[in-house]
Amino acid sequence: MKRGTSRSGDRGAYAEGAAFVEGEFVPVDEARIPILDWGFLRSDATYDVAHVWRGSFFRLEDHLDRFERGVAKLRLRLPFGRDRIREILVECVRLSGLRDAYAEVICTRGIPKPGSRDPRDCENRFYAFVVPFVWISTPDKQTQGLHATISRVERIPPGSVDPTVKNYHWLDLQAGLLDAYDRGGETAILVDENDNVVEGPGFNVFAVKDGAIATPDGGVLEGVTRRTVMELAADLNVRLERRPVPAEELRRADEAFVTSTAGGVMPVTAVDGSPLGDGRPGPVTLRLRGAYWGLHEDPRFSLPVRYD
Amino acid sequence: MKRGTSRSGDRGAYAEGAAFVEGEFVPVDEARIPILDWGFLRSDATYDVAHVWRGSFFRLEDHLDRFERGVAKLRLRLPFGRDRIREILVECVRLSGLRDAYAEVICTRGIPKPGSRDPRDCENRFYAFVVPFVWISTPDKQTQGLHATISRVERIPPGSVDPTVKNYHWLDLQAGLLDAYDRGGETAILVDENDNVVEGPGFNVFAVKDGAIATPDGGVLEGVTRRTVMELAADLNVRLERRPVPAEELRRADEAFVTSTAGGVMPVTAVDGSPLGDGRPGPVTLRLRGAYWGLHEDPRFSLPVRYD
Ligand SMILES: Cc1ncc(COP(=O)(O)O)c(C=O)c1O
Ligand SMILES: Cc1ncc(COP(=O)(O)O)c(C=O)c1O
Repeated sequence: MKRGTSRSGDRGAYAEGAAFVEGEFVPVDEARIPILDWGFLRSDATYDVAHVWRGSFFRLEDHLDRFERGVAKLRLRLPFGRDRIREILVECVRLSGLRDAYAEVICTRGIPKPGSRDPRDCENRFYAFVVPFVWISTPDKQTQGLHATISRVERIPPGSVDPTVKNYHWLDLQAGLLDAYDRGGETAILVDENDNVVEGPGFNVFAVKDGAIATPDGGVLEGVTRRTVMELAADLNVRLERRPVPAEELRRADEAFVTSTAGGVMPVTAVDGSPLGDGRPGPVTLRLRGAYWGLHEDPRFSLPVRYD
Repeated sequence: MKRGTSRSGDRGAYAEGAAFVEGEFVPVDEARIPILDWGFLRSDATYDVAHVWRGSFFRLEDHLDRFERGVAKLRLRLPFGRDRIREILVECVRLSGLRDAYAEVICTRGIPKPGSRDPRDCENRFYAFVVPFVWISTPDKQTQGLHATISRVERIPPGSVDPTVKNYHWLDLQAGLLDAYDRGGETAILVDENDNVVEGPGFNVFAVKDGAIATPDGGVLEGVTRRTVMELAADLNVRLERRPVPAEELRRADEAFVTSTAGGVMPVTAVDGSPLGDGRPGPVTLRLRGAYWGLHEDPRFSLPVRYD
């Protein structure tokens, strides 16, 4: 396996990001996967995304834990152990030189034997890539807050695909997003068959009423940011309930926010065209957002990258 | 755009199949797609599969019609028109030299602008590949019939993802398949939330009782083979009903079969460990299978490939 040394003097090539594919480090825009990989042709894959902030990974081990659990649930086998995977991801960040980055690890089913339809025949594959940090809502946008629409598209239910396994089944989320744009929204929140909100394209959802927070207990990815918010709420003595959250409750909330590795704690200030509260990011949201970014200084959650 | 001429003397390189990716024809095992394509990272794509039998495409225009409808429903735009797409697919077959082949066309969302989450910002992509003909049940296996198990995994419902848009959201089907293998089955049939059968990994489902055929009316891909069977049943004066088919009805059927471009009309002779009827392929199934393959001689449905 090559270490991306041949290019290491040439940071320019990696400025848009770096990837690890088929045993090699390459600039992300050159990274390719086999068209026959069932990770593509059957979306038979799981992945995880961690982020690097000011040169350090945040809660990387929690992401790798979730990744390994997803791999096991899909009955995949990783070709590398935890240490090698961490090393590959750190090397992608180092090559890119990025101080704020979005770092993705992927395990796919791989390529079947010719003519075979049996997933057990496949040699599973590992890929990784790092690109500049992604914001679902940019810091600029966050001062104003997002306008979310509640989609008529239902999130793929747990009886079909286990939402705790981070997966690429996003056609429902993409349809919700297009629908949101059509209706003047900036992002979409999907519901389950009982019209309870679940999650959106890359984030978990929280509603705040009378100082107490509610977030769906099931049918969603157990976000690392969601977990961070739960821990912070406990620290800050803010009540947080995990239970079904009806769409109507979200529409009538005092404040709301969404959480994701791609942006942290992000205020939602309007739902379906109507402002929440006074239409500005709420105090509970802002407190949690501050605490979230503050936690990035905590060495327990931090893995510094050596860039030289 | 290159025509695969540089290698055309070198049939060996294409013996496993040929692909068209990023404007070039390449041997299928060299075909790669960008890791950043949302067709992979969000399974935001549609595709279709036609087959070539004894040197001719079967019902290619019906497959391309369905493909174009799917592209429109996902609000994608194909970079090429129908004639160019047909030409590319034929060229892949010609390069491969394959007389019996599985021919796939794909349209993906493509790569977003850096940092963008907006599907409308993407330039959509077209890929194609051709590999040797795939059998869900080989001719050998068909003399005995398949043992199918009815899965506890529910097919992704139409409220989440439109099943008439042929898509790569297969984790439910793959889970069903692994579950089938665990239980001694050879393939899986998935149900909806009401325990009606819908479809399986790559096929539609039919139950036969007292000489009449039933197949699910909705919640499934409108298979070209399914449609062929409907037309043949009408021609042969066999009653065929499109309506919900309870799992229990399938278990008690006289005979059953599944249909797919990947193998045609394929007998199912046992469900959940119990034989159907006398446990051998039934007369209605065999009549339809004969008629299906007979139809391959019909010039209305046939597009011969020029291999020289
Ligand atoms: C569907 C979905 N829900 C929730 C989340 C949030 O999870 P995390 O906080 O771990 O990024 C994500 C990930 O980005 C996601 O894709
Ligand atoms: C989910 C699903 N259902 C049904 C079918 C059968 O469709 P067709 O007869 O057009 O191959 C397929 C395609 O192979 C499929 O993937």
